[in-house]
Amino acid sequence: MDDPDVSTGHYGELPLNQSQVKILRKYSNIKDLNKMAKDTLVWVRGRLHTCRGKGKQCFILIRQQAYSIQGVLAVGEGVSKQMVKFTTGVTRESIIDVQGYVRATERKIESSTQTDVELHITDFFVVNKAEPRLPLQIDDAARPVTTVDEDKEALSIVVNQDTRLDNRVLDLRTPTNQAIFRLQAGICKLFREALDERGFVEIHTPKIISAASEGGANVFEVSYFKQKAYLAQSPQFYKQMAIAADFDKVYTIGAVFRAEDSNTHRHLTEFVGLDLEMAFKHHYHEVLDEIGALFIGIFRGLQDLYKDEIASIYCQFPAEPFEFCDPPLRLEYREAVEILRDAGEEMNDEDDLSTPQEKLLGRLIKSKYGTDFYILDKFPLAVRPFYTMPDPSNQKWSNSYDIFMRGEEIMSGAQRIHDSPMLIERARHHSVDLEKVKGYIDAFRYGCPPHAGGGIGLERVAMLFLGLDNIRKTSMFPRDPKRLTP
Amino acid sequence: MDDPDVSTGHYGELPLNQSQVKILRKYSNIKDLNKMAKDTLVWVRGRLHTCRGKGKQCFILIRQQAYSIQGVLAVGEGVSKQMVKFTTGVTRESIIDVQGYVRATERKIESSTQTDVELHITDFFVVNKAEPRLPLQIDDAARPVTTVDEDKEALSIVVNQDTRLDNRVLDLRTPTNQAIFRLQAGICKLFREALDERGFVEIHTPKIISAASEGGANVFEVSYFKQKAYLAQSPQFYKQMAIAADFDKVYTIGAVFRAEDSNTHRHLTEFVGLDLEMAFKHHYHEVLDEIGALFIGIFRGLQDLYKDEIASIYCQFPAEPFEFCDPPLRLEYREAVEILRDAGEEMNDEDDLSTPQEKLLGRLIKSKYGTDFYILDKFPLAVRPFYTMPDPSNQKWSNSYDIFMRGEEIMSGAQRIHDSPMLIERARHHSVDLEKVKGYIDAFRYGCPPHAGGGIGLERVAMLFLGLDNIRKTSMFPRDPKRLTP
Repeated sequence: MDDPDVSTGHYGELPLNQSQVKILRKYSNIKDLNKMAKDTLVWVRGRLHTCRGKGKQCFILIRQQAYSIQGVLAVGEGVSKQMVKFTTGVTRESIIDVQGYVRATERKIESSTQTDVELHITDFFVVNKAEPRLPLQIDDAARPVTTVDEDKEALSIVVNQDTRLDNRVLDLRTPTNQAIFRLQAGICKLFREALDERGFVEIHTPKIISAASEGGANVFEVSYFKQKAYLAQSPQFYKQMAIAADFDKVYTIGAVFRAEDSNTHRHLTEFVGLDLEMAFKHHYHEVLDEIGALFIGIFRGLQDLYKDEIASIYCQFPAEPFEFCDPPLRLEYREAVEILRDAGEEMNDEDDLSTPQEKLLGRLIKSKYGTDFYILDKFPLAVRPFYTMPDPSNQKWSNSYDIFMRGEEIMSGAQRIHDSPMLIERARHHSVDLEKVKGYIDAFRYGCPPHAGGGIGLERVAMLFLGLDNIRKTSMFPRDPKRLTP
Repeated sequence: MDDPDVSTGHYGELPLNQSQVKILRKYSNIKDLNKMAKDTLVWVRGRLHTCRGKGKQCFILIRQQAYSIQGVLAVGEGVSKQMVKFTTGVTRESIIDVQGYVRATERKIESSTQTDVELHITDFFVVNKAEPRLPLQIDDAARPVTTVDEDKEALSIVVNQDTRLDNRVLDLRTPTNQAIFRLQAGICKLFREALDERGFVEIHTPKIISAASEGGANVFEVSYFKQKAYLAQSPQFYKQMAIAADFDKVYTIGAVFRAEDSNTHRHLTEFVGLDLEMAFKHHYHEVLDEIGALFIGIFRGLQDLYKDEIASIYCQFPAEPFEFCDPPLRLEYREAVEILRDAGEEMNDEDDLSTPQEKLLGRLIKSKYGTDFYILDKFPLAVRPFYTMPDPSNQKWSNSYDIFMRGEEIMSGAQRIHDSPMLIERARHHSVDLEKVKGYIDAFRYGCPPHAGGGIGLERVAMLFLGLDNIRKTSMFPRDPKRLTP
């Protein structure tokens, strides 16, 4: 016969939470459990990361987002054999409620983020249990990419990207992903705070539009009651209309859709656009200066406020820290072409940059100027959309710019044509169906200040700031031509 | 022969701005031009609101967003007849650059917001001219709705809603619309700031989804390469997945799509959802308390920080100021049904509220409790979606709530089922195709904390806070079954 269970009431599986009771109980964050918390009795809710039974003892690792602490359960006063056995049988990734004393350890614990203390458990409850077989192991998904190269004998399992994305909810639990999406939220926050301070107004623009406005390519078609509609490729026309409607400086953050069948490391069919548009007084460089300063502020803010997240991401995916200069480097397109020609590229003045040329240019600029961030100004008019303002002195060029990080484009923008006759002329030149852009062109019939702006791809900024190799790493639930789930 | 023009170089039409020159010139905001600025010489860029020639004089009204100032041009030293004639001929709504001395006036000027000063103009340039015929007059679009009733003899032109929306860029220039969309931006800002402070993480969820998840009704279909996809009716499944992925507290702001053929004052086919989801420890009221406090914070913030905007909107559309109590009133659904029955409504315990019943309830609660804001908790399980957590003590009810402003629903939410077997059972009960919600249900197989949340309709909150009569007034470019443009 078993001994009477001295731990009855101190462990077990809680009933499914349907909000049966209100309990006022203070929970601690694992992040805060260090030597300062020594010998206090605390409750923690977290995940059972691992569990090892060892005779009359049981060691567990409790994880909470990016942090973890070791827990110890030993048969003795208050802890029964039955309790240790129960704990040993709980499935990994289950949500657990644990009470215990924070005790200093003699030796540093390398397996958890809290290395100086462990938890001597008095109570152990399962709040919600995980199924026993996990489609991927968090430890595998979290393993540094270098391990594979440095230590080839080690039996390292690499979780490939599709497995990760198919099981995104598990994959997102790694410290790296916890950090990536917190940093991504930081980019949006810093973007908005900087623009709010400068007097910008946040607006919301429609995603369902009546006509494929920029020529009809690469748009998704929507069944809209008995007619056809399309998904907006950019909020641009609407933010320009907001400028014509006297909002002076506007920004908007929202989904942008591109029906391009591009299966590359940097294309998504749906991404988050950070868009801004601003009236200026005399020269579009008034706007470009603001945009440059905005980015510098975002980079500084990320490096200051998201130090821990960046360090955590670099642990798994090592990269060179992102470098930039203040004010940012600004080159004219023709200067970039010169740099490329000097490096042996054959191209004409007005050729568009190919992706390999962009990357090469990034490396050349990095070695020459020491910056991963730069602006190319004065693009050839021929490669830009119809609404781009031509350069006043030479119709070969335009008042437009692209912004690059580590040799990849993250933002495109321009002074826009704010004069309806000129806009009509340029639309005709580009064979744009005037009927389809009527609402847009009409916006400029009744007085509009000169203005410029641009759109930033959030996922690209996050990817390139961190030096990651694939945009699917910075989209929580990415969409590409082959992926629509989860 | 004309006199030589003494004003040459001080007036005229500027060439189309293509950023020909960089000019460093300080411009003043009309808002700041008051007695303090007396006798200073300032440049202003604004719109020519009106222009009246009077012999050798010309009076103009310069408008800048919600503010305006009178400008005077009189033939005399430095101002030629030709200059006055030129100015008199400029079309209304043109963008102009004006230099002049700020002079105190003897009598208050009633036609402008700056009543104590006017501008004695020395320079007048047209930056971008408006076409001579405007499809609507800003003054007509800005006229208080009361004028029509109080002063029926007056020849008041009412600009109807479709005319406004067809010419939205002009309509948005009224002081009321300038205020509405600034206040709307304020709602988003206050929402985010409050949640950032409470440790929420902003996420972005896909709008294109693979299956019409909530039963297939009311979704827009999208052609996605060679397959079909749908527009998300809500970010809910994804924010719940973020909770299962350990983000603990998340929010997201983005477009939400409803393919309902509802042509009412409060339905849009595309609106902005402010969504939040939060893990809780024991009872979903932990979340509901946070949501209540969030709204109180938003209302306080709007009343403190957007006083001027609210006052300006009430000038055109008078309404009772929005009232609320802190903590917010919370009633159970069955109590609401009692209140309605006491008022003579015939309904069963578990009937859903009709729109007229919601409105009646709003009036009854206002007169009984003095609040325009309240929460109805514990909705009948039968009227809620399959993922709603049943009440633990009585399957007739559920752990779900709706939030109301002035008798109209602005937010719906619930504790969600975080246990996959129960979720499967409830989905079957609701005849939901399990294959279509597989990714969602899988999210709960590997441990998930209990959680609750909800989604807020931004346009409804703005409309009802301000007491406006139509949701199209709080959507910059509204979409409904009949409107896809501009």
